[in-house]
Parts: sequence; structure tokens; C-alpha cells
Amino acid sequence: MIDHIYWKEGVLYLLDQRQLPFRKEYVECRSLNDVTGAIKKMIVRGAPLIGIVAAYGVVVGAREIIQRKGHCSDADIQNISRKLLITRPTAVNLAWALKRMQDAYNLHKDDPDMLNILTREAISIHVEDVEGNRILGAYGSDLIDDGDTILTHCNAGALATGGYGTALGVIRAAHEKGKRIKVIATETRPYFQGARLTVFELHEAGIEVELIPDNHVGLLCARRGIDKVIVGADRIARNGDTANKIGTFMIALCAHKYHIPFYVAAPQSTFDRAIDNGDLIEIEERDGKEVKYLRKTLLTLEDVKARYYSFDVTPAKYISAIITERGIIDKPFKKNIQRLF
Amino acid sequence: MIDHIYWKEGVLYLLDQRQLPFRKEYVECRSLNDVTGAIKKMIVRGAPLIGIVAAYGVVVGAREIIQRKGHCSDADIQNISRKLLITRPTAVNLAWALKRMQDAYNLHKDDPDMLNILTREAISIHVEDVEGNRILGAYGSDLIDDGDTILTHCNAGALATGGYGTALGVIRAAHEKGKRIKVIATETRPYFQGARLTVFELHEAGIEVELIPDNHVGLLCARRGIDKVIVGADRIARNGDTANKIGTFMIALCAHKYHIPFYVAAPQSTFDRAIDNGDLIEIEERDGKEVKYLRKTLLTLEDVKARYYSFDVTPAKYISAIITERGIIDKPFKKNIQRLF
Repeated sequence: MIDHIYWKEGVLYLLDQRQLPFRKEYVECRSLNDVTGAIKKMIVRGAPLIGIVAAYGVVVGAREIIQRKGHCSDADIQNISRKLLITRPTAVNLAWALKRMQDAYNLHKDDPDMLNILTREAISIHVEDVEGNRILGAYGSDLIDDGDTILTHCNAGALATGGYGTALGVIRAAHEKGKRIKVIATETRPYFQGARLTVFELHEAGIEVELIPDNHVGLLCARRGIDKVIVGADRIARNGDTANKIGTFMIALCAHKYHIPFYVAAPQSTFDRAIDNGDLIEIEERDGKEVKYLRKTLLTLEDVKARYYSFDVTPAKYISAIITERGIIDKPFKKNIQRLF
Repeated sequence: MIDHIYWKEGVLYLLDQRQLPFRKEYVECRSLNDVTGAIKKMIVRGAPLIGIVAAYGVVVGAREIIQRKGHCSDADIQNISRKLLITRPTAVNLAWALKRMQDAYNLHKDDPDMLNILTREAISIHVEDVEGNRILGAYGSDLIDDGDTILTHCNAGALATGGYGTALGVIRAAHEKGKRIKVIATETRPYFQGARLTVFELHEAGIEVELIPDNHVGLLCARRGIDKVIVGADRIARNGDTANKIGTFMIALCAHKYHIPFYVAAPQSTFDRAIDNGDLIEIEERDGKEVKYLRKTLLTLEDVKARYYSFDVTPAKYISAIITERGIIDKPFKKNIQRLF
């Protein structure tokens, strides 16, 4: 497994995912600014991982304040939480993890051991995510047949989570059960999560993988070259509408047309029970420069406008089932999501 | 207008489209190998342009043989034609142009002026393409409303044709009529025809353009950010099924879902009346390395497999109308295509 996030003596170490698979460089987060910067700049990405990093971020931030002025107030914790919350708008795991940290603080704020308790809470969020992914993977692996060719988009693997993966967790679990699987990974423009991260993870795990540009999915579906689709999620509404990496919706449309099962794999922390449907999910817009440049290489005219949305919403209608650590959610989603939690 | 192909004293000059928009370098084609290489290596691309280049290629090849052995036989011409035909399999304009050159040769093979006659035929194919595009553009511009935001994929512009464009010809014509248009150009992985060529052409023409990754189309359609889609074509079957740049089909699915008109713009030479439907169109597969590398920059693991299909087929069902230099073809396509030609 890739050691892409670890905590040591009050410092959070994050593998810089922008450099993968070419260089393994760690970023040390010693201040709240280091942590918020790591999320904003996409040194780390992936909804569950962002939540975990934010949880550690609360500890880093509280520790920084205690070192400076001897104690940390309610207002300080709220301020830390707010700065972490606004780093990225779409993944709801961020709010979920911050809520858990806030609850832990509220319960133990008068305890002289408060900082250690917060640290243990962040570690719990991290460890539970990995354990949850393993269970989710085991449930999901029942949906996979020996010999399947599975399409995945972006990276919903160990690198997007605490360390096992959601969509790739299902694939890992099926592989561990001895099912022969071939994965088709979309490269995932513009950040190339598929080309850089998914390919890397699957290669390390010894699972056969083939890379395609995002625009190839229609042809492969038409040629019956894909048996199943599994993707992760950044936020799931009460009715099952799912925000995930930009391009997911187009893949779902293709799968739907050819009756190819389309699965979403996500932990409980990705469900936003406060919203009825996907229209209410805020879609992050990032700097168009990330589309125009590949690292330092300009891909187009310098002064052309470019647009970069990070996510889109796949309506529940196009999703066959949602795989969670509590079991597989079938349709009708609204009723079954409510029942599960 | 961009002078991207010209003929001078027996030499064919081609602007190297792989270098655009960063460098304007011309490749000189003095031998048949130069011409076949230019098509295979995608120094030139775009179905109508490939046909024009192949027509000039027949002249270059015949001239080469006459210079070497004093005359050019039926077998020589067939051999030249065959070598040009196999450069790329999907665009039917290539076979169409070679057929015209073969017919010209058959009629005039005993004429001492045969080489000049072939040269004039190639120039005619070139000039007629530009004229045809202007007429096509005028027809198509009637479909465009003032204020439209139009999505296009790949490059079906001056650079893909003799010098005006099919899909971009419609946009140019509407712009020339004073209609205010905004174009959204997909970057078009992996060759970046959209980012490099379409953006460049529209920018030169003073038409507003915005660049998006290919995977953004679903979200933009869902948000009602696109009024119309216009694309080119590489081959159109008798029933209207259309092969075009990979990714076109996924865009058509999105447009269909949101009732956005989806137009194909193509000259007569793109219609293949020998085939009933799109299932019979051969789809070119190119080297996966073109997906794995951006110029010399590796985007993924060196030893991962990658797949690169150049085209996909959009079923006629998803096409609203086909714009040609003979007029606009409405549904039912099979009957109306037959009637038009």
C-alpha cells in the first residue's frame, strides 16, 4: 500500500499527488496554512482523503494556536474549521470530518488532554475510512464477475482515501478474491488523475490496466468493450444524485444507452442528507490555466479563455446501485438511502 | 485566411499542423513518400484536406516516376493511388479524391500534357472544396441565431479543408453575416486539435472562443450553456450514421438528452454511398504512445498500455440535420441523402 498520508509528532506528511507517478515527494504540514494550501493546490485530492486531511488540519491548527498563546478557544476552533471548510466546495466529506472534530472538541474542550483527544479523533477518522473501504470493497466485489472489464474514471483509490479506495477498493477486493479483472482507466483531464494515479495504483497492485482518453468511452461502450463502470463520489444527495469528477455524467449516459451497470462506490461520509437532489450541489470552478497548461507547457494560445469545472452531477436515474460500507444500496435510492443510515 | 497548403512548381507545401499554434513550419513534399508520410504522421489532418493532399500526392508521385523513367504507366498510377489510399482508413474523402484523379488519368493518359492535366485536376479539387465550403457555410448559417453559443469538437475549419472549413465554415459565415456567436471548443484529446487549431483559427477570425476539456460537455449541456452543436465528419453512411473525431458520439448523446440541435457539416465528398450504415466504417487505431506522451513529456507510467482510436460513429438518430454545399439534409436521412446526390 502507498504511504501517502501519515502523522508523526504533530506534523502531517502528505505525498504530493501532483508529482505522481514520477516523483515521490512529501509535503510537511506544520501550520493550518500548510494544510489549507495542500487541499486548495490539490497536493491531496479525493473526497474521503480531503476529509481526513481536514481532520488532521484541525489538530495542526489547534496546536499552532496553543503554542502561540497557550490555549485554544471556541472561536479559534470555529475559525480553524471555517478556513478548512472553504478550501474546496463540492466534497461533503470535508464538512462531515470537520463536524466530527467539532463534536470531539465540544465534548472535551475543558480536558487538559484536549489536543491529544483531537489527535486521536483525526486518527480514528483516518483508520475508520480504511476499514470502511475494505468492507465496502468486499460488498462491491460480489457485483464483479470473473473476467470483467471495468471502466473507472478519475482516481477513487487508495490515494483518494485513507489508504484502500472506494471504486478501486471494489476492484482490489475482487482481485484479492481471485477474480480476473481488466480495468480501463480514463486519463481524466485536466489533472490526469487516471493517467497518473489510477494507472500507478493498479500497476502496483498487479491489476491489468489500460489507459484511454476521456472521449473514448462512447466508442468502447458501443463496441461492448466494457462490462461494468465503477466510480467514486464527492457528494451524494438524498435522492441518489451524485457529484463526481467532471466527465462522470457523460460516462453514465453512455453506460445507460448500452445497459452497462454503472456503480458508485462511496463511504457514508459522502452522503449529504441535507439536500434533496443534485441540483443543489455547488460545483467548483477552478482556474482555466490548469486546462491551458500542462505543467509549464502551453497547450493553446496564451490569451484564450478556458473553463475548468471540477465536477458534474450524475442523476440517480443513471446509477445502477451505490456501494457503501453499510451494504449495497439499490433503487429506489431515496427510500433505501434513508433506511440505511 | 491561413495559407496552410499550396502548390508551387511541382512541390506541395504543407503547414505542419502538429506545431500549431506555436510555430508555422512548412513541410515540402517532393516525393510520394513525403506525401504519404505527411498524412500518416498527421502533419495534415481533416477529412477534406486529406483528400486534397492525396490528389496533389498523385501528381507528385507521377512526376517522380516520369522524372525517373520517362513515363508513367497504368500500373504506376494504381500503385501511387494504393499507397495514398492506405495512409488512413476512416476518411472517405481520400478514396473520393483518388477516384477523381484516376478518372482524370484514364481520360488523358495518352495526352503528352497528362501531368499538367492531373495538376489542374488536383487544383480543381482544392478550389472546389473552398468554394463548396463557402456555399455550405451560407446554407448552415441560416440555422444559427444571433447570440448563439455553439459547441464544436476537434477542428473542422480552414485547417481541415481546402481553406474555409465545414463546421467552422458555418460559424464563419454566420459571423460574416453579423450574427454574434460564441464558440465553445473542446480541446480534443489526444492531438489537441481543438486547443491548438480551432482556438487559433477562431481567434484569427475574431470570433469569441472558449476552451474546455472534452469531459465538460455533459455539465455544460445540463446547465443549458450550449445552444447548438456543429461538428465535421470523416465519413457519412447512406443512412446518415457519421464517423467523426473520437468523442463526437458522447457529445451527441449529451445534446440529445437536452434537446440541443446537433448538426454535421460536410461536403459531398464525405458521403460514402457504398455503405448502408456506420457499423461498416473502419475505425482507425493509432499508436497508444500518442496518449501517453505530450510531445516528449510522459503523462503516465512508461509501460502501461494505452489505446487511441481516432474516430467514433454517431448514429443518425442523434443528428438533427446534415449541412452540405448542396443544401441542408433533414430527416429521414436515407431518403434525403439519396435524393440530394
